[in-house]
Amino acid sequence: QYKRVLSEGLAKAGLTADLSRCHAPEVVDYIVYAPNPDLTDFSPFTRAKAVLCLWAGVEDIVGNKTLTQPLTRMVDPGLTEGMVEWVSGHVLRHHLGMDAHIVNPDHQWQPKAPPLARDRTIGVLGLGTLGAACASALAALNFNVTGYSRSPKDIAGVICRSGPEGLAETLSVAEILVLLLPLTAATENLIDTKALSRMPQNAILINPGRGPLIDDDALLKALEIGQISHATLDVFHQEPLPQAHPFWTHPKITVTPHIASETRPATASQQIVENIRRGEAGLPLLHLVDRGAGY
Amino acid sequence: QYKRVLSEGLAKAGLTADLSRCHAPEVVDYIVYAPNPDLTDFSPFTRAKAVLCLWAGVEDIVGNKTLTQPLTRMVDPGLTEGMVEWVSGHVLRHHLGMDAHIVNPDHQWQPKAPPLARDRTIGVLGLGTLGAACASALAALNFNVTGYSRSPKDIAGVICRSGPEGLAETLSVAEILVLLLPLTAATENLIDTKALSRMPQNAILINPGRGPLIDDDALLKALEIGQISHATLDVFHQEPLPQAHPFWTHPKITVTPHIASETRPATASQQIVENIRRGEAGLPLLHLVDRGAGY
Repeated sequence: QYKRVLSEGLAKAGLTADLSRCHAPEVVDYIVYAPNPDLTDFSPFTRAKAVLCLWAGVEDIVGNKTLTQPLTRMVDPGLTEGMVEWVSGHVLRHHLGMDAHIVNPDHQWQPKAPPLARDRTIGVLGLGTLGAACASALAALNFNVTGYSRSPKDIAGVICRSGPEGLAETLSVAEILVLLLPLTAATENLIDTKALSRMPQNAILINPGRGPLIDDDALLKALEIGQISHATLDVFHQEPLPQAHPFWTHPKITVTPHIASETRPATASQQIVENIRRGEAGLPLLHLVDRGAGY
Repeated sequence: QYKRVLSEGLAKAGLTADLSRCHAPEVVDYIVYAPNPDLTDFSPFTRAKAVLCLWAGVEDIVGNKTLTQPLTRMVDPGLTEGMVEWVSGHVLRHHLGMDAHIVNPDHQWQPKAPPLARDRTIGVLGLGTLGAACASALAALNFNVTGYSRSPKDIAGVICRSGPEGLAETLSVAEILVLLLPLTAATENLIDTKALSRMPQNAILINPGRGPLIDDDALLKALEIGQISHATLDVFHQEPLPQAHPFWTHPKITVTPHIASETRPATASQQIVENIRRGEAGLPLLHLVDRGAGY
């Protein structure tokens, strides 16, 4: 998928490269990385100048002690666009109550228009590249958007909160909550019974971020008692979601198969090329991972 | 629904009014109108200065020969906002292929991300207040939008076509087609076998406009042969859609019960008040219907 677009991009940037998946580690200058169970020891890559991750989430690799090279994560315009479209679509789906019409075996004609977006509050947890783009797009669709991030942010048209009180405030107003946090020790199981209980009654949860952000048992319980009315989940603790997992058959859960967005070779390769160009020119790399923060 | 908001609005505009549904016709200054089978003869309303329609579509009344007063149609910001949300939501639903995940009895995990909106072309027939707002919103979501209207229009970010060739061109590129034309003699059954055959194979039809824009039998045939892959219909020749109508049970048709948008008393009453204010001040009325064009 990447060989042709990377070759073309590198050539255009005036760089010659020998692209292969089978180089001896000690001759490799740059590692273009996607999560790979066979690559756990980076220490043989003695001359590698950087590890350039093709994924936006780096939780599989960030804690690897053998990885001493600079690590970059993917900020792909195609990935961001796809995420904005998936999130906008599913927020509108729930806002409009579409499912009752898509599946309507009794042919009920009940003309009750939904409220306007201006009367609906959306919460977005995580205001990185993806979260900020989604929050802005939802604000452009007229929704009231409150966003939360670890560090303070400023996004036009979006109420931005940070810190533990900011998280609690965001949860408490979110009729529809979108999870776009990175997965770190601090965010694992963040959406637990306590967090879910802070949300408005009958709230909707949408998770295109990372599966382990949610405590699955807490979510099932919240759905059972009506605290949460529906969850649309694109990511899971284990993927593919095992056939025996209760999410598959739950009437209040929609499973999508990790398609909210994907890195697209045509656009993602441009970032890889740009970082190799920067590396060769001695310039700072784009989208360096903060190894302490974990993303 | 309207009495309180109209009274308040009129009072705020410095106008006193006697609001009632039972005045003798000859004392009425303004008729605030919604389609009403009991009101077919306007000739007794000898001093009425205008008929102010609460609906955006005026096809029920525009041909009434007894109606000699100026006729205005509703341009309600709430109606427009609701329409933009419904159209954006259903376009994204089809763009993203949501239905395959909302109803997935075999628990299939097939991670195939949809194309980006930038690689999807949407056609919008009708570029009046509602069509133009929807076309702009879809362009803001990154879709390629081509719009058609009877008379030439100019909308930022939207390819605008007009005339018979403009209609044919718009149909030929529309992977998803949204109908927001007024219902007139010229648009009735516009979406017939010939029009449907011009569209790309497997195109999707979305009709939040008026039911009679579509030739129902032609649509059923186009769905049968795969010319059209799905139709989401909010309006019908007869409403409520009769229980025996084949649309209800068709696997490739989604029926919504004329909820794409509705006039909202709080915002619509503002236009009514403004037109009464204008009428009393001798100023031109807003959103006058062109009786020749029919809308």
